[in-house]
Formats: sequence, C-alpha cells, structure tokens
Amino acid sequence: MSTLVEQLIQTEAHQSIFESAVRQLPLPVCAAFGSSSSPQPVSFKNTGRVLSTKDSDAVRAQFPQSVAASNNIVLTSSGSNPATVQGKRVAVLFSGGPAAGGHNVVCGLKRVLGAGNTLLGVRAGPKGLLKGSLFEITEANVDFILNTGGFDFLGSDRTKIKSDEQFAQVRETCIKHQLDAIVVVGGDDSNTNAAVLAESLFTGVKADGSGVQVIGVPKTIDGDLQIGDLLSISFGFDTATRIYSEMVGNILQDTSSSLKYWHFVKLMGRSASHVALEVALQTKPAITLISEEIAANQESLASIIDRVARVIVERSHRGMNYGVLLAPEGLIEFIPEMNAMIAELNDVLAHHAADFAAQADDAKPAFVGSRLSPENASLLASLPHYIVNMLLAERDSHGNLQVSLIPTEQLLIDMARQRVRELDANVPFAAHSHFLGYEGRCGAPTLFDAAYTYNLGLTAGSLILDGRTGYMATITGLASGGTPQAIPLAGLLNIERRHGKNEFVIEKALVKMDSPAMQYFVSRREAWAASDLFASPGPRQFWGPTTDQLPISVALNSGADALMFKIG
Amino acid sequence: MSTLVEQLIQTEAHQSIFESAVRQLPLPVCAAFGSSSSPQPVSFKNTGRVLSTKDSDAVRAQFPQSVAASNNIVLTSSGSNPATVQGKRVAVLFSGGPAAGGHNVVCGLKRVLGAGNTLLGVRAGPKGLLKGSLFEITEANVDFILNTGGFDFLGSDRTKIKSDEQFAQVRETCIKHQLDAIVVVGGDDSNTNAAVLAESLFTGVKADGSGVQVIGVPKTIDGDLQIGDLLSISFGFDTATRIYSEMVGNILQDTSSSLKYWHFVKLMGRSASHVALEVALQTKPAITLISEEIAANQESLASIIDRVARVIVERSHRGMNYGVLLAPEGLIEFIPEMNAMIAELNDVLAHHAADFAAQADDAKPAFVGSRLSPENASLLASLPHYIVNMLLAERDSHGNLQVSLIPTEQLLIDMARQRVRELDANVPFAAHSHFLGYEGRCGAPTLFDAAYTYNLGLTAGSLILDGRTGYMATITGLASGGTPQAIPLAGLLNIERRHGKNEFVIEKALVKMDSPAMQYFVSRREAWAASDLFASPGPRQFWGPTTDQLPISVALNSGADALMFKIG
Repeated sequence: MSTLVEQLIQTEAHQSIFESAVRQLPLPVCAAFGSSSSPQPVSFKNTGRVLSTKDSDAVRAQFPQSVAASNNIVLTSSGSNPATVQGKRVAVLFSGGPAAGGHNVVCGLKRVLGAGNTLLGVRAGPKGLLKGSLFEITEANVDFILNTGGFDFLGSDRTKIKSDEQFAQVRETCIKHQLDAIVVVGGDDSNTNAAVLAESLFTGVKADGSGVQVIGVPKTIDGDLQIGDLLSISFGFDTATRIYSEMVGNILQDTSSSLKYWHFVKLMGRSASHVALEVALQTKPAITLISEEIAANQESLASIIDRVARVIVERSHRGMNYGVLLAPEGLIEFIPEMNAMIAELNDVLAHHAADFAAQADDAKPAFVGSRLSPENASLLASLPHYIVNMLLAERDSHGNLQVSLIPTEQLLIDMARQRVRELDANVPFAAHSHFLGYEGRCGAPTLFDAAYTYNLGLTAGSLILDGRTGYMATITGLASGGTPQAIPLAGLLNIERRHGKNEFVIEKALVKMDSPAMQYFVSRREAWAASDLFASPGPRQFWGPTTDQLPISVALNSGADALMFKIG
Repeated sequence: MSTLVEQLIQTEAHQSIFESAVRQLPLPVCAAFGSSSSPQPVSFKNTGRVLSTKDSDAVRAQFPQSVAASNNIVLTSSGSNPATVQGKRVAVLFSGGPAAGGHNVVCGLKRVLGAGNTLLGVRAGPKGLLKGSLFEITEANVDFILNTGGFDFLGSDRTKIKSDEQFAQVRETCIKHQLDAIVVVGGDDSNTNAAVLAESLFTGVKADGSGVQVIGVPKTIDGDLQIGDLLSISFGFDTATRIYSEMVGNILQDTSSSLKYWHFVKLMGRSASHVALEVALQTKPAITLISEEIAANQESLASIIDRVARVIVERSHRGMNYGVLLAPEGLIEFIPEMNAMIAELNDVLAHHAADFAAQADDAKPAFVGSRLSPENASLLASLPHYIVNMLLAERDSHGNLQVSLIPTEQLLIDMARQRVRELDANVPFAAHSHFLGYEGRCGAPTLFDAAYTYNLGLTAGSLILDGRTGYMATITGLASGGTPQAIPLAGLLNIERRHGKNEFVIEKALVKMDSPAMQYFVSRREAWAASDLFASPGPRQFWGPTTDQLPISVALNSGADALMFKIG
C-alpha cells in the first residue's frame, strides 16, 4: 500500500485536510467572557428595556410565570459570574433545518459549563427529547466538531412539541436524565417552542418542586429571525449566503466568458428575501427579485415578467445576450394575484371534485377556467402548461397547493422567453436554471458564524448558570467587540391565526423597503442591469486577508462604517 | 452617503475584497524560468521521445511541414533563451467552455514576451480570429486579471475553423494584425484545430514568405485531455472539481444532519468520468457511478438501478435513510443497451415519420414500441413517461436525440424509487436532484491551477520566442518542481469517423479501469456505501495551511507519495 493511499484513508470520516485544519482555528470571545483560552461564565442584569407586541396582554395570561420572572426585560452581561455553579445537567438539541455554526454552539456550551457540570446531546432533534435519546458530550467530541459545518453531531428534525402527551414525554425525559436545563437551537418556530417549554417546565418538574430552565439560540439560514439591534442576524445566514454568493459570482463570471446564456437562480429562503438581497449585494447581478417589494407594490406576474424581459432586451441591444437573475424561493406566494388565483382554484376544485375528476386531462384546464373569475381564468391561461397541470394536480392533505413545489425559476424563464419574443423577436434568449439551497446549510461556518455561534453557546451556558429561563441568547454589537445579552422570549410573541386557531408565533422579519440594505440595492440595481458591474466574492476564506466580514445587509442595516466584524 | 456605501460601490466590477486580494498572491515559477519576480524565456531541445498513434502515417501525409519540423519529438526546456527576440506580435484566444486559470495563461504569456514583443487578445474566441477582432493587452490588464477566474477578459466561443473560407479569414487577420504567432487555449478539439492551423500557416503567410506559429495550451474542466506523464491533467479540472467537492461535501454533511434525504448529483463532464471520480475521492459518498466501468461491464440500466437500490435499502436497514449518489453527465451514452435502443429509435422515427406524427400523443409510445426489437421495446417501456416523451419528441437538426438533455439524475431517482419499493416497501426514499456544472468553470483558480496556468503561459511564450510551431505547452513533474515541455500536436492525432467522413482528433482520455485512482476508488467504495465515512474538503483556500494540493486522482495516477504540488 502506497504512502498516499494510507494518507487518503486517514482523511475519511471528517478528517479531510481542511477539516483537520479548521479545528485548530482559534476563536475570539467577547471581553465579558475573559480570555479566549479559558472563557468564564458571565452573570446578567436587567437593562431596563422592555419588549412588547400587540398581544403582550394575551401572552402574559398564557405565560404567567415566565413574564413574572422576566418582566419581558432584556438582560445584559454584568461581569463574570462569581458563583461557582456545579452539578447542573444541561441538554442541547438542534431543531429544524441545519445551519452552519450549530456545532460551535455546543462547543461554547461545553466550555462555559466546564468540568463541574454535564452537557448532554439530544439525538435527532425535538423527537429525541420526546424519546429521551440523550448522551453525554465529552471534551473529545468538542475538539472534533469545533468549526465544522452541519448538525450531524446530533442530527435534527422538525417535530413540534405541542400536545399534552408530548409535554408529558418531555417531563419524563427531564426526570429520567435529571436535567436542569434545555438549550433549543432553532429558528422562529423553535424559539416559540422554547418559550412554551420554558413556561411548561417553569416549576414542578423535579422532586423538590423546581423546574427546568429553557434557553433558545437563534438559528436560520433564511435570516428572518432578526430583532432590531438586539439580534441583527441569526446564525448560519452568513455562511449560506457566502456559499451561494460564490456560486452566483462564478456563474456571473461564466456569463461574460461564454457570452450566450442567462442563468435564473432560485435561492433558498421560504418567506423572506434576505438571502436573495444579500447575495445580490455580494455579487451585483443584472436582476434580483425581492418578494417583499412585489407584495408592497401589488405587482402582477405579467408586470414582473415584463420588467425581467425588458432588462433582457435592453442588455441584448447593448451586446450582452447574457446575465443572471436571482429569485427568492418564496416569490410566488408574495404575488398577490397568484395567491388570489390559487385560493379560488382551491375552492373550485373542492366544490367540483367529482365533476373535475371525471374530465379528460386535456379538458381539465377549460373546466376549471370556466368556473374561475375572469381575472383568475386569464391568469391561469397565461401560465405554461406544466404549471397549469401542477396547479390542477397537486394538493396536500389539507387540499391546499404546495406553492413551494412550483419551479419558479423555470416558470420565470418560460414566461420571460415569451415576453422577450413579443418585445423583440431578434433577441436571443438561452437560459439555464439553478436552485441553490441544500449546498449552503452545512458548509463549515465562516469565521463570523464560527465566532458568533461559539459566543452564543457561551452566552446560553452563562444564562443557565445564572439561573435564567425563557430567554434567547444573543450577542449585540457584532462590529464593536460583542456583548452577551438575553432576549425574553415571551416579549417576542404575537398571536397568529393558523389552521383555524390562535397560535403564538415570533413574527418573521421580512425585508423592509426602507432599510438601508434595500435602499442601497435599489440605488444601484439599474446600473447593475445596464452593464456588467458584477463582482466575484470568491469562496469563504479561513486564513488570510479576507476572512472577517459581516454580511453586507447586516453591516448596512446596523449602521456599521465597515464590513469587518469584531468579537473580542 | 455613508462610508460603507462608498466602500461597497468600490467593490463593483471585479473589485470584491477577495478579487483585490488574490491579485496580490505571488506565483511560483519552474526553476527553468529563473526568478519568479522576473521570469525569463527558456529555449527547447529534443528529448528523443517520439509520439505516435495508429494513424501516424496518414497524419504525416496531411501535416507534412509540421511533422518534418518536429519529427513528432517531445521538447524539453534547455536553459534560458539567450537570443533576445524582439518585435514579435502574438495573439492569444480562448476556445470552448471556460476553465479556471485561462487568465493566468495570458499573464504568463505577457510576462515572458516582455516589453519587446506585443501580446494581442482575440475577442470572443475563434470567431474573433475570423473577424479580426483583436486588441493589445497591456501590463495593467495583466495586473487586473491575474489569479481571477473565467474567460471574461477575452470571451470565448465554440467556432471550429474548418472551411477554406475560414482559413482564408485567419490569414487575413494574421496579415492585418501582422501576427507572428497564435496561442490557442482550448481542449482536445481546439488543440486539434491548433494542429491544423499550424500546418495551414506553416509558411507563406507574411510578405517574406514566412509563416505564423501556432501553440496550444491544454484546457478543460472535464480532465479528458491527458497524455500520460507528459500531461497529467488539463488546467481547470482542479478548480472545478474542488468547487463541486465542496458542494458535495456540504450536501453529505446535510444528509447526516437532516437524516431524511438522498441527493442525486449529476456532475459536468460529457464523455469521461474523471470529474465524478475525483469528487468521489475528495468526498467519499455512498454511491458513485463511473461511465467507463458501466461500458466495460456492458451493464444494463436495470442492473445499475438494482445496484443503486440495494445500497439505499441496505443503508436504510442500518438506520441511514439518506445518502449521496454521484453520476457523470455522460452516463446514459455509456450504457450499451441505451445506445442501442436510441439508435433503433432514431431509425424507426426516421422511417415512419409521417405515420408517427399522425398518432395521438397517448398512442405514440405503443406505435414506436411495436416497431422496436423486443429488448428495446421492453427497455423503452421500463422508463418513466417523461423520459419516453423526451425520447420520442426531441431531435436535433441531424435527426439525432440530444442525449445530454436527458435529466439523468431524475431518471435515476425515479427508477431507483420503483426498485427500492420492490426490494422493501418499508424503506423510505425521499430524494433531491442537483446538476453541478456552470458553477465550476469560472471560479478563481486554485493555487495549483493558478501556478500551473501561469507556467503554461510562460512555456507557450517561450516556445514562440524559440521559433516553434505545432506544439502544445505542458509542465511535467508537477510534484517535483515542474519542467516546461512541449508536445508535438501532430504526434497526438488519430483519425475518427464523424458525420460520415474522416476527421483528425486527439483521443479523449477516459477513466482507465486499471488506473491507481480507479483501483483505489474500487477498494474503498463498499466501505463508503456501508457507513458514513465521508469528508468535507471545504472551500478552496488561497491562504493558510490547506492550499497546495494536487487533484487526488492526478496524484494517485502519477505515483506521487503525497498530495502536495510543487512548482519552482
């Protein structure tokens, strides 16, 4: 066996040259935690800042213990924690889609809890908490997962803990594993769940009548978990958008090399367009569609297509038969007329189910079209046949269309082709479609996400050692050293009508039309459409001169005067 | 206007923080070129090694001047070139699909030609040579494009220079721009074209009866332009496979985080499976299909699907309802029975065109099926309906199916789903498909591709200053300092029957079953299928400890004892 083959086998199982090297990268910590080689827990004090929503009274009624304890007041670190808490048993779980940096949250927790307390990992997400599938996390585990991507150390799932039976199962797990605290790493829904759990486990779990603390950690690549200056971004967003931005930058470079293709790129992120906006700011492509703007302008599909086609035609007239369009995954759901049409379609199909099923496939569009309002019938007729088939065929178990299954990028290509032909039949239009999503969730975290999540872990662990429950850990001032803070989860909750009943939710942060990031984008996009001003941000770097950047939208929206992040 | 907005506008047009930084990276040069700060041209001498193919006699008849001059003997550098050649006018063009490092070939050429000679860029590929669209390349251009990805500095296209009229146009361009030499940066076809051009322009172009030199530079991300130890890899392959490997590594990490998806990934590379093999060696996924192995084993589609489905079922029985499959873009064309069926289908459709067109869409598959041989009819009937529709519908202008349009990754998913259900109906199988291609052609070159291409440019320029024509530049000994050498293009040519006539071609290098890289893959793949041994190679790095690697397959096949490349 050659030396090289032996070396290659040694790189198997997460031991690539890269993975071995990133494990050694030092991580900075906020000054509050002391030295980075031996970070110490901090204690917390009230800031005096009270959070409230339109539904605060209703929330107070549903979360009496949490609200009485926190008064919905934001906490900030108040120096190192002198009390040497020992013997706490803390469980950590990942909830929902993976995001880069989750492993470092675990590492931060382990470090700050120290040898005197026990950190347990919950296998495969909230479901593992119900089943009581936990194991003790060792120092060796932490050394192995530090700075690596993915949630694979624990696994994840999307189980929502809602029913009385589920709450009973969680209590059982708490008792069985003698838990003192649970850390939930997740997005808006998971942090809502953390708030509910915190209230449910507030007291009376253990034999002595005491409760189990619950702390949330803000994760989502979509970037739609933001709370003003208290939480300028969730973790994982930076890594995902940097990965997508490299790919889009490469594709842009390809368009002006090959000189003959348009590429329509759909970007992951169901509700908000933060990802699309950030990738646009990083790469400066010809066209970027922002769902929130389309909704705000009540723009029709025909108008969007016309807008796109006109850029294609104008670029062609300037000699550029190529370009890149970015579209957010959730686009279709933000087009008011599409929503209205789909809603009427759902009704028609529900009311005429038997008659509809009896029609020949060819006759179905006309059958439905004649039962829709004229506007909706005309919109349906304007769509490519495969979209019509999909609209008529696929329904989920509630009888609703799964809008996310619509291949938006292909729909835009086909409709744009048609419109380009109408505007100028001599304009060539050859297009490829892409969907960038899964590639971005589990890459090794950028140095920003790596440092941010490690400090979020230190903060979450500190909150537990300080006896807090019902808070979400955060680091504020990401460009000025970083301060560990805590957001009272009950102070974030709103009531929303879902599936016919009231539910508590943390409102998703959408792209705001008047935000500095959006305004900067709007000020530049015509120039980006008119000529090639794109840039390639390149692959994220872990060493060298280009490592320490914040997401551009975060830097703009938080009023930073440079792109550098600074923790510690 | 804020400081940050000003900074952001300054990053437009190829001025990202990353692009600005990579331009400053130093590049090593082979010892033969002297110091890296001021590389000097080398002269060349015969090595005594003669290249030949089965068609050497026919080639000699068609390329008399080239063969008489080179005797098909490989050249190697023989110290720095003492003759101070001045006043040469050299044109460089990109041909075919872009590949990372093309810009550095231009930079190497410019440096070695020095201030005493003139380098011109041909706009938009071979077509630009026909049209005479050239411009002078400046030092400032070179500083701007150094180490950046893409072919966008010049542009590219796929025009083949074949007709007498085209050769006349090239001569006209040579005269108009007073060219002494042309450098063609391209793949196997483009280098064949370079050989033809070299012979055509050998003499009698300029007023004094002298000719124009032509030098090729070996480019292609597919990696199928390889000539044993003389050319262990074309440029661009390393960057493309590293980009794909990062994406596949991220997706692998996602599968074991989310615990519920298979991802079927099709990888660019039409003929050969080098890309798929290299990405497999980098990432170690559960399943990788190698077209050449399937062809060698005369494996049927049903057998491939069965093989895939059994891995899915076995992994599920071990608790892993997830995994990654890699498939080369050209897979379908390497399945003997698919080729046979498509050939008969083309015949049937050609012979029964009018009758076929008269059938209702629903009736078409049966109409064709009844006219195929029983085996082919049965194979056609086994395919998903959208593939059947595609096979019956789409023909190019020659009446042939464009096999590349078949969505192989989706076909494999749908057929595997069916087979999994037959093997064990309790195995869940949820799959996503990906095609990785355009993302990999225009990223910033890895340090290997950056150094390799810069030295290829230095070599190509040296060959011109040394008065050579009809050679392809190469660097041998990539792990041991690097030696500039030159491969006589006529010595590589074979005759192949294409479109009913004999054409000269450089044979595509396919994956060899007995190569060390393939054998290593075969020795490990069962272990990779049975449990999660994957690794994430991470994004390519330009600074720090993980920058200097060769492609794994290249290192294995060239007998290297480590992954490091060493130039200079």
